[in-house]
Amino acid sequence: MQPPKIVTLTTDFGGDGSYAGAVKGVLLKINPLLKIVDVTHEISCFDILEGALTLNSFYRFFPKGTIHLTVVDPGVGGKRKGILIGTDDYFFVGPDDGIFSFIYDQEKVREMIELTNSKYFLGTPSFTFHARDIFAPVAAYLSLGVEAGEFGQLTRHCYKLQMPAPVRTKNSLTGEIIRIDRFGNLITNISSDFISDKRRIRIRFKNKTIGRLSRFYEEEKQGKLLALIGSTNFLELAVNRGSAQKLLKAKTGDKVKIEKI
Amino acid sequence: MQPPKIVTLTTDFGGDGSYAGAVKGVLLKINPLLKIVDVTHEISCFDILEGALTLNSFYRFFPKGTIHLTVVDPGVGGKRKGILIGTDDYFFVGPDDGIFSFIYDQEKVREMIELTNSKYFLGTPSFTFHARDIFAPVAAYLSLGVEAGEFGQLTRHCYKLQMPAPVRTKNSLTGEIIRIDRFGNLITNISSDFISDKRRIRIRFKNKTIGRLSRFYEEEKQGKLLALIGSTNFLELAVNRGSAQKLLKAKTGDKVKIEKI
Amino acid sequence: MQPPKIVTLTTDFGGDGSYAGAVKGVLLKINPLLKIVDVTHEISCFDILEGALTLNSFYRFFPKGTIHLTVVDPGVGGKRKGILIGTDDYFFVGPDDGIFSFIYDQEKVREMIELTNSKYFLGTPSFTFHARDIFAPVAAYLSLGVEAGEFGQLTRHCYKLQMPAPVRTKNSLTGEIIRIDRFGNLITNISSDFISDKRRIRIRFKNKTIGRLSRFYEEEKQGKLLALIGSTNFLELAVNRGSAQKLLKAKTGDKVKIEKI
Repeated sequence: MQPPKIVTLTTDFGGDGSYAGAVKGVLLKINPLLKIVDVTHEISCFDILEGALTLNSFYRFFPKGTIHLTVVDPGVGGKRKGILIGTDDYFFVGPDDGIFSFIYDQEKVREMIELTNSKYFLGTPSFTFHARDIFAPVAAYLSLGVEAGEFGQLTRHCYKLQMPAPVRTKNSLTGEIIRIDRFGNLITNISSDFISDKRRIRIRFKNKTIGRLSRFYEEEKQGKLLALIGSTNFLELAVNRGSAQKLLKAKTGDKVKIEKI
Repeated sequence: MQPPKIVTLTTDFGGDGSYAGAVKGVLLKINPLLKIVDVTHEISCFDILEGALTLNSFYRFFPKGTIHLTVVDPGVGGKRKGILIGTDDYFFVGPDDGIFSFIYDQEKVREMIELTNSKYFLGTPSFTFHARDIFAPVAAYLSLGVEAGEFGQLTRHCYKLQMPAPVRTKNSLTGEIIRIDRFGNLITNISSDFISDKRRIRIRFKNKTIGRLSRFYEEEKQGKLLALIGSTNFLELAVNRGSAQKLLKAKTGDKVKIEKI
Repeated sequence: MQPPKIVTLTTDFGGDGSYAGAVKGVLLKINPLLKIVDVTHEISCFDILEGALTLNSFYRFFPKGTIHLTVVDPGVGGKRKGILIGTDDYFFVGPDDGIFSFIYDQEKVREMIELTNSKYFLGTPSFTFHARDIFAPVAAYLSLGVEAGEFGQLTRHCYKLQMPAPVRTKNSLTGEIIRIDRFGNLITNISSDFISDKRRIRIRFKNKTIGRLSRFYEEEKQGKLLALIGSTNFLELAVNRGSAQKLLKAKTGDKVKIEKI
């Protein structure tokens, strides 16, 4: 038996259901067999970077052929394009506003299609809810086997967010906090690959110094600030059974410095 | 292959899972093949009108045959009936407390059944959790093909919420805010159909005046208050990349006035 | 047709999706046919007891063969074991940190396996995300029919939380609040079975006295404090269309006393 096609949903629609409910209805009306996987509807309102980071945290764990419907879309109805990206393993559908920035960098893009073929839209699209009127029907028809090229014209231009990159000096590397998870863990943009000798560093954040890398949270005493390489391979500040965010009054954009010792 | 029956869930049970989890278990124990679609469990506690508005925002997008299980049920265990409504396209199961008010008005109701046949209940129902003990098993047996009439006796009386309607004078129309979404958009009860000449109006809210209707949020400058016809065809006050709710300190019930110019 | 295997998810990962998304991807990559049921990702961070209580509130309603993946895991990467428990009806997969305390007590355990066979892990497991790297793949392979014994070695030792038990004197029974639901209902650890004559008791909480047991919330006037036997068969303090938690400024651990009259 052919497994059902999977569509993941990642949006800033909120948990109240009004918008996500309509999107799911549209998907299932076109393809009642597809499997919808809610990833989240709790991306902070309008926060495209947070949406891009969330997508990046999970997309590669899904089976080949999964369609990732990803919508943080403050520019809906305006000039930004709707887009479908086909890579070797996945499809991505959503607004071309930077939410697929990591995909362009990390995946082998086979085709990018600007969504212009209104044959696959839900009636006459509204100006304010393209997730329901354009992206969901496109994802659903795609799951039925419609070819990517059918949905519009090939495009070579896409919008990429400027990502903050760590800055290296002779003996240090300065990055920043790009995501804070529910536990108050502070996830930085410093990939583990950037840290050559993990045993001979110290980490500075505001007026705090962390003398070494831990492997896991409980390696340190309860309540103690620590640093480790997190599950997505980036440097992370954390507190065992506590919140580094609260302890350090941290926010995204705050600088983190690694020094060789 | 016959697609699996769909049951949507819309409740005020909250995201903590204790209540929604039991409901899902009961559904799947009776029909392991059915497809459960979480719409939301975040309806404000006891807020039947919010539940009715949410249901109204999504139900019609689902495929024919979908069963909409909808439960905001402060009167559980008391005098309010449990009800099953069959329309041309859908089934609705839940308490008869007004949550299906929009359905009675908008759909062609084929049958209304008071849920009295304990053969389809989960053991002896509790007095406090009919979603688990009555509504979920009824929805599940319905998905297996049990006829609606099997679940109890036909009823002609159902409870409808009094809905606030816009008031028209010679040169104005006064409605009110009935729903506020996650983005802080203020959705009114003024349908687009009520506004005859969309180019010659101004909108008044508290001490603010909006001179025209926009088509989409980004048509205005960031942070600017605007008005548009939203995705459910009702007048909506919004702020581009901001929250009209916060800007205007608005709440549901606040009046909105449209004047001809 | 064989119904698809069900995996329920109960975690403290939060609604932001980064962690739960990866877990779902891993599950579906191994078994694209399985049915994932989100129970909740909103268990309070690190709160193993809350996770155990939530699991206890729903697991028994699911069909035989369901796999309950349950993860509140502050000790990830450290000394706590990963565990698979097989009972007559279900499988449970997660950390051996007490989250399955109620299962050991209530179900007939057929086998307990410490998860040590890395053949069923996702590559080399991280130190901080065993839900993705160990528990999800184990649950997925289990759903494909791999025998429980394949995942590691039999174990006889498991970790159980100390549960607060009600204390009985000649004419009274003193328990405590162990869970507060979204409605502000205060659920105690006093099982209905402990209350011999339900008509001749009064309930004391802080400086309040409740003179009788109600059957359902609306039996009392709106806003009135009441006590009833809730849907999980435990004594519960509640307010009709209000929040007992707010009215009484209650928190888990607060004592509740029942006196014979």
